[in-house]
Amino acid sequence: MLYIIDILGTMAFAISGMLTAMNKRMDPFGVFVIAFVTAVGGGTLRDVLIGRTPVGWMQDLNYVYIIIFGFFVALIFRKKLDKLRTSLFLFDTIGLGVFTLIGIRRGLIVGLDPVICVALGTMTACFGGVIRDILCNEIPVIFRKEIYATICIFGGIVFFILRRLGFPEDLLYLVTSLLIIIIRLMAVVFKWSLPPLEK
Amino acid sequence: MLYIIDILGTMAFAISGMLTAMNKRMDPFGVFVIAFVTAVGGGTLRDVLIGRTPVGWMQDLNYVYIIIFGFFVALIFRKKLDKLRTSLFLFDTIGLGVFTLIGIRRGLIVGLDPVICVALGTMTACFGGVIRDILCNEIPVIFRKEIYATICIFGGIVFFILRRLGFPEDLLYLVTSLLIIIIRLMAVVFKWSLPPLEK
Amino acid sequence: MLYIIDILGTMAFAISGMLTAMNKRMDPFGVFVIAFVTAVGGGTLRDVLIGRTPVGWMQDLNYVYIIIFGFFVALIFRKKLDKLRTSLFLFDTIGLGVFTLIGIRRGLIVGLDPVICVALGTMTACFGGVIRDILCNEIPVIFRKEIYATICIFGGIVFFILRRLGFPEDLLYLVTSLLIIIIRLMAVVFKWSLPPLEK
Repeated sequence: MLYIIDILGTMAFAISGMLTAMNKRMDPFGVFVIAFVTAVGGGTLRDVLIGRTPVGWMQDLNYVYIIIFGFFVALIFRKKLDKLRTSLFLFDTIGLGVFTLIGIRRGLIVGLDPVICVALGTMTACFGGVIRDILCNEIPVIFRKEIYATICIFGGIVFFILRRLGFPEDLLYLVTSLLIIIIRLMAVVFKWSLPPLEK
Repeated sequence: MLYIIDILGTMAFAISGMLTAMNKRMDPFGVFVIAFVTAVGGGTLRDVLIGRTPVGWMQDLNYVYIIIFGFFVALIFRKKLDKLRTSLFLFDTIGLGVFTLIGIRRGLIVGLDPVICVALGTMTACFGGVIRDILCNEIPVIFRKEIYATICIFGGIVFFILRRLGFPEDLLYLVTSLLIIIIRLMAVVFKWSLPPLEK
Repeated sequence: MLYIIDILGTMAFAISGMLTAMNKRMDPFGVFVIAFVTAVGGGTLRDVLIGRTPVGWMQDLNYVYIIIFGFFVALIFRKKLDKLRTSLFLFDTIGLGVFTLIGIRRGLIVGLDPVICVALGTMTACFGGVIRDILCNEIPVIFRKEIYATICIFGGIVFFILRRLGFPEDLLYLVTSLLIIIIRLMAVVFKWSLPPLEK
């Protein structure tokens, strides 16, 4: 179940990368690389930093295949992607919740401190987008607008509080990822954002 | 033989990096870093992702020395580099073919799937240039213009088809790298390029 | 003693990152990430390239805490940071000297060649700033202006000359880091810089 959501989230992230790349008038190879990096970049960075190599997508080809599949589907229907904006946003939000918890879990497996695990969760969920923006020569959007990464951090903290309170493992993952998804939906609906920090 | 070509390709990549950096009015340290990163960046990224650390150039200093050598030579003759444009382009193209196969071989050694090996080959050959462009604050040129990475992918696929057909190992490397080199030369002579992908 | 200086240097680097990020009108999360990356990015890159994972700051949380602490202090006093410019510059310079030697030491521990150790030292001291500038969509400042990285390289070379001459270990670290600090101070006072390299 988690795995299917993971795969759907990966595809949603890939398509969001494609949309950005096509606005930059990249060629098909460029668009594919951006799609790929947006989808697996966060998890790849996490794996490299904790020393889990060869990195995840090299060991489970389903990620590669789903991105290639998503790439061609989105290519064919690219004129109609605007109409799918809501579905895409929904998948992206589900991905945000699930990826955060996957990152936290990876940290726990390696035996890292909760503070680091929360950082790894946030990285997994948000840094594919950061690398996408750097490759597209933009200041990363999550550093400037919208509450996005902050929700992952909040969700990660709640995870470790509930964990200390003795919540059963399975419920813990479900509740926290749902929490992240719900807050993210609310943040977009009510247009929450952090104000820029000025000197 | 392969090793000498590898070293020549490294130098050609380094000098191509220098040319980009000098157009950005960088100081000598900046130019050197860009030259270095253009030359070994793709292989370094590959090594980090598959967990082959310390990365290649830390274990074989010849790469470092040839880049330093190329740096000073190009520095002295920098007014005349325009006249060497054709030789440089030739070395760069040879590097493209050889680096792709070196990347594929690294993947095979670690026992990775052919799909991942092709990605590693392309990365080895093309991502030094991507990192160069990011450090120079440009959208990577291989995402926008010219058939470059696509040829590496094509060459990698041919490699695995011939391999399955039972081609002898040595011939396999020779034929595929020559194929990449020839297609690249033709792509430049006939000005082949992928059209931008638009919504 | 070295450890305390290391921590102070980390904080100074973090605050220098914050100042850059606030000029780009980033939100608090963005400012924090830039502060973090400026402070530990160089050491993280070094650890990844030599295969020391999980990377340093994941294993010693003091780095994380001092950056969080520095972040909030600088946030509260952000209107007055201009007056602290001299203290900040001093910490930053001390950080430059200490970080270079920490990087060299890491290389020696792994048994790498002196040439590579000097590169690792320079990377540790300077590449946090490079990653900061890339995330802020700028050409890295150390590639364009001021003598900064070049001093680390020079200090590293002196380190290995004195080492070969049989200098006692402790004195070696002290003398070389002081040398880097003094030259950097002089470079700023006398406005030394490398001229851009042009074709």
